[in-house]
Amino acid sequence: MSSKRLIYLPLGGAGEIGMNCYVYGYGAPDNERLIVVDIGVAFPDMDGTPGVDLILPDIAWLEERKTRIEAVFITHAHEDHVGAIGHLFERLGQPAVYARAFTSNIARGKLAEYGYSDKVVKTVSKWPETVTAGPFTVGFLPISHSIPESSSLVIDTPEGRVIHTGDFKIDHNPLVGEAFDPDLWAEVAAPGVKALICDSTNVFNTHEGRSESTLGPAIVELISAQRGMVVATTFASNVARVKTLAEAGEAAGRSICLMGRAMRRMIEASVDTGVLSSFPKVVSPEDAMAMPRDNVMLIVTGSQGERRAASAQLANGKYQGVVLKDGDLFLFSSKTIPGNEKGVIRIINQFSEMGVDVVDDSNGKYHVSGHANRPDIEYMQKLVKPQIVIPMHGEHRHLREMVKIAKGNRFQSILAPNGMMVNLGGNEPSVAGYVETGRTYLDGSAQVGALDGVVRDRIRMALNGHVTVTLILDDENEPLGEPWCEIMGLAQTGRSRAPLVEVLEADLDQFINRASEATLADDDKLEQQLKKIVRQTALDEIGKKPEVTVVISRLSA
Amino acid sequence: MSSKRLIYLPLGGAGEIGMNCYVYGYGAPDNERLIVVDIGVAFPDMDGTPGVDLILPDIAWLEERKTRIEAVFITHAHEDHVGAIGHLFERLGQPAVYARAFTSNIARGKLAEYGYSDKVVKTVSKWPETVTAGPFTVGFLPISHSIPESSSLVIDTPEGRVIHTGDFKIDHNPLVGEAFDPDLWAEVAAPGVKALICDSTNVFNTHEGRSESTLGPAIVELISAQRGMVVATTFASNVARVKTLAEAGEAAGRSICLMGRAMRRMIEASVDTGVLSSFPKVVSPEDAMAMPRDNVMLIVTGSQGERRAASAQLANGKYQGVVLKDGDLFLFSSKTIPGNEKGVIRIINQFSEMGVDVVDDSNGKYHVSGHANRPDIEYMQKLVKPQIVIPMHGEHRHLREMVKIAKGNRFQSILAPNGMMVNLGGNEPSVAGYVETGRTYLDGSAQVGALDGVVRDRIRMALNGHVTVTLILDDENEPLGEPWCEIMGLAQTGRSRAPLVEVLEADLDQFINRASEATLADDDKLEQQLKKIVRQTALDEIGKKPEVTVVISRLSA
Repeated sequence: MSSKRLIYLPLGGAGEIGMNCYVYGYGAPDNERLIVVDIGVAFPDMDGTPGVDLILPDIAWLEERKTRIEAVFITHAHEDHVGAIGHLFERLGQPAVYARAFTSNIARGKLAEYGYSDKVVKTVSKWPETVTAGPFTVGFLPISHSIPESSSLVIDTPEGRVIHTGDFKIDHNPLVGEAFDPDLWAEVAAPGVKALICDSTNVFNTHEGRSESTLGPAIVELISAQRGMVVATTFASNVARVKTLAEAGEAAGRSICLMGRAMRRMIEASVDTGVLSSFPKVVSPEDAMAMPRDNVMLIVTGSQGERRAASAQLANGKYQGVVLKDGDLFLFSSKTIPGNEKGVIRIINQFSEMGVDVVDDSNGKYHVSGHANRPDIEYMQKLVKPQIVIPMHGEHRHLREMVKIAKGNRFQSILAPNGMMVNLGGNEPSVAGYVETGRTYLDGSAQVGALDGVVRDRIRMALNGHVTVTLILDDENEPLGEPWCEIMGLAQTGRSRAPLVEVLEADLDQFINRASEATLADDDKLEQQLKKIVRQTALDEIGKKPEVTVVISRLSA
Repeated sequence: MSSKRLIYLPLGGAGEIGMNCYVYGYGAPDNERLIVVDIGVAFPDMDGTPGVDLILPDIAWLEERKTRIEAVFITHAHEDHVGAIGHLFERLGQPAVYARAFTSNIARGKLAEYGYSDKVVKTVSKWPETVTAGPFTVGFLPISHSIPESSSLVIDTPEGRVIHTGDFKIDHNPLVGEAFDPDLWAEVAAPGVKALICDSTNVFNTHEGRSESTLGPAIVELISAQRGMVVATTFASNVARVKTLAEAGEAAGRSICLMGRAMRRMIEASVDTGVLSSFPKVVSPEDAMAMPRDNVMLIVTGSQGERRAASAQLANGKYQGVVLKDGDLFLFSSKTIPGNEKGVIRIINQFSEMGVDVVDDSNGKYHVSGHANRPDIEYMQKLVKPQIVIPMHGEHRHLREMVKIAKGNRFQSILAPNGMMVNLGGNEPSVAGYVETGRTYLDGSAQVGALDGVVRDRIRMALNGHVTVTLILDDENEPLGEPWCEIMGLAQTGRSRAPLVEVLEADLDQFINRASEATLADDDKLEQQLKKIVRQTALDEIGKKPEVTVVISRLSA
């Protein structure tokens, strides 16, 4: 057996849906040459990450080994696969980045925000073109998904061929981009595949997946029945869906208007890179508003209820001069991602107040998923016949379910969550070690570790409110004036019906007057005591224990 | 036409699912005698109401008219119908409260927390018993729902009979409590019904509702197939379901153990009030752990992923000595309420990591809703044949849909959201006016208005972090020492790689040194300037504009 080894290490995406970042390595243990597959983001929420702009994978492990990184490969242009490339590019040592044309277009935009030239990202044509990166030879094998030019990676290594599916579904008529080609896949798999690293997102869905092409007729029928304006939303990056919607609108005799920056950006990128050969003529919002309402269809951003997107702004009353009204229709050609329900429901109710009818995907007629369901996952595994199946792109429950299925179909399989390094060599996969992983927050322009306490402190202030206490002492530890309090995010009055700050100040003053010289001389002790009093008094008055900042100033004569 | 009028006024629950509070009045305009139907809470979340304990209806309108309140009637014991009774009882002028026995039991517990005696709540038997409250005669007409002794209210008024459905479903075999009795309902409706105020929660579900009794066999089958421990969760107040689960466990040869305070409280109340005549024998957690795992079934609280409930604690590792492990099964016999998805998914993934299989209600076999679906709503309306249908217990979209349906069935109908007062008299319902409504937050022990800014400030601190600035001046406006900063919830270092507080202090100091005498002498101006500098410097350094508390101290000689 060789002293070299082939390793697989997920740093993000294996234990969550989002923030994908996978590492493959080959070489002597602890000296492998590395490639990175995808470098995506996850999205923050008020519950756990208030104020955070984006969540990035913690790449400390990679950063320490950046001289060993041969290249980064991006499977497709979804934010959870490409979104962190700009933010982490320098820390990765500015490696070569490879992607197909559409993905390159998007990745370049992200790197440009950090001042990097377009040359950083190298565009690769689809399989059979390959790129050599150290011990790896990598090709982009077309696969259907919900964004143009999604690719699986065929990674040839000295230990054999590995296929990393990326996000995928089996779609024989995806409308935009390459149809799933079973013959090509069979051909690629024919020499034997060591490991299939496989998207597990929809493993719990037991129905066969449906093609993008099944949606058009139902949408045309829906639109044709409308007498008011029609507005549809979907993910901007789902270019095939945007096209489906636009063509359905056109077929129903309507002019199409695209609204929202991301929507226009994606259609531009599609046209620039040639992935979109035809698209109905679009009109401006201004022109749209000048037409009879039943001649217009808007396609807008904001399918997840995002507050700043077009859909939310329309729900709030007006966007770029467009106002919806009684008799209009709003179509969600999308699925609500768990966690976004409240935002979506808020919009639906706002539309309801305007008299706008809302149709969502609950009947399954106006949306299909971009991920393979269980039967399609099994089909893929049986087509590729790998020695090993490793689930990725899923929460723990998805990974676990796929391992069960793969083993049931007599493949070797291992559940490798973020941070577990797997040795793919030998007769069966084995755990090669564990790496510290986690999350880094992009917070404004700063990168903050998830465990740094910054966000924890914000959550505490949100839950408990905040009190500032100031106290000035002279150089003989005599208080100059009384302690002063300011509150933020707390009830103004409590049980005693006096202003809370006054009660706090009175209690602090009483303490100061009785405090020993030793206490008054000791900043730490004094601060702890003042905090304790504030928290106890607030608890008595309003039933809450606030966060407290104490500033003790000592003046010398 | 009489100079008196019959009014309906929702103060909560019509425009949301939760926080139910409806007012009926009869008398001369602006001098009606009032009854209140239900006084519930809504639940806070981190998104909009961080740190808040409960959300109560804003009852300012009622409080100003408390001498006109004849009584409060509680339809059933769900928190969104009874949860605010203790918190608002005094502000309502300590009115008479009427409910059936089980509901009384729960309401009394809530009033006891505020020191009120059991006598405050008067227990009423089911229809045909009635209570006279001013111009109203009110009876509790049994209706099936998901908690014992749910009732519709038959409200006889000088303008005719009004039926307030409360929450309901049509269940002819609800297992606990009275089956829906169409003959009794027809009899009550026979004299003619002026208005049906009708639950609209499930109006978008087009399937006929299913009976509680349909679940047992599937659950027995599921449990019988298990070789490890079985744990099931549902709403504690769904006593029928708890019974279904327990009996299924017993039928599968297992001992039953109830875990979670709310679960035991509800079963106790059911036994005390006689609504539960039989229930399998239960064992303690300690005894359960001493048995073979396949002889045990736990029924636990926490179906919504609540962090402190039994399910979350089991997912965290241990609860009352019970540890789940590989091969156990966890059943959600419940629906996840929108907004709770993330918490539920978190638990499922934790169980996955333990090797515990999770079954949820996605196949519809292990849960039925407590609310009437569209066909059942239509059935109810056709059975009662009211002059007017007014939807309640729903978001705007639900209310709107029910108005459409009612009008389609040739009933008069009006969409009355919270705050709209409807005159039910005359030939058709009309808007009698609008009342300011809103939400009151129970925050610790204080009641805070939703628009008071307290929660807004907390959200801002959570999003933006907080900086405290202190500055001391002498009586000639000369700074004593330099400005001092403390940060909370902000990155420690930014662009310049120096500590953020040091950069802030340097910029503030520079400003102070250059500031005019007039600026230094003016607290307001100085504070505004210091805030502005902090926000600008933080923006430059870390890309965020924090909340700022400035404390300027002026010392006299």
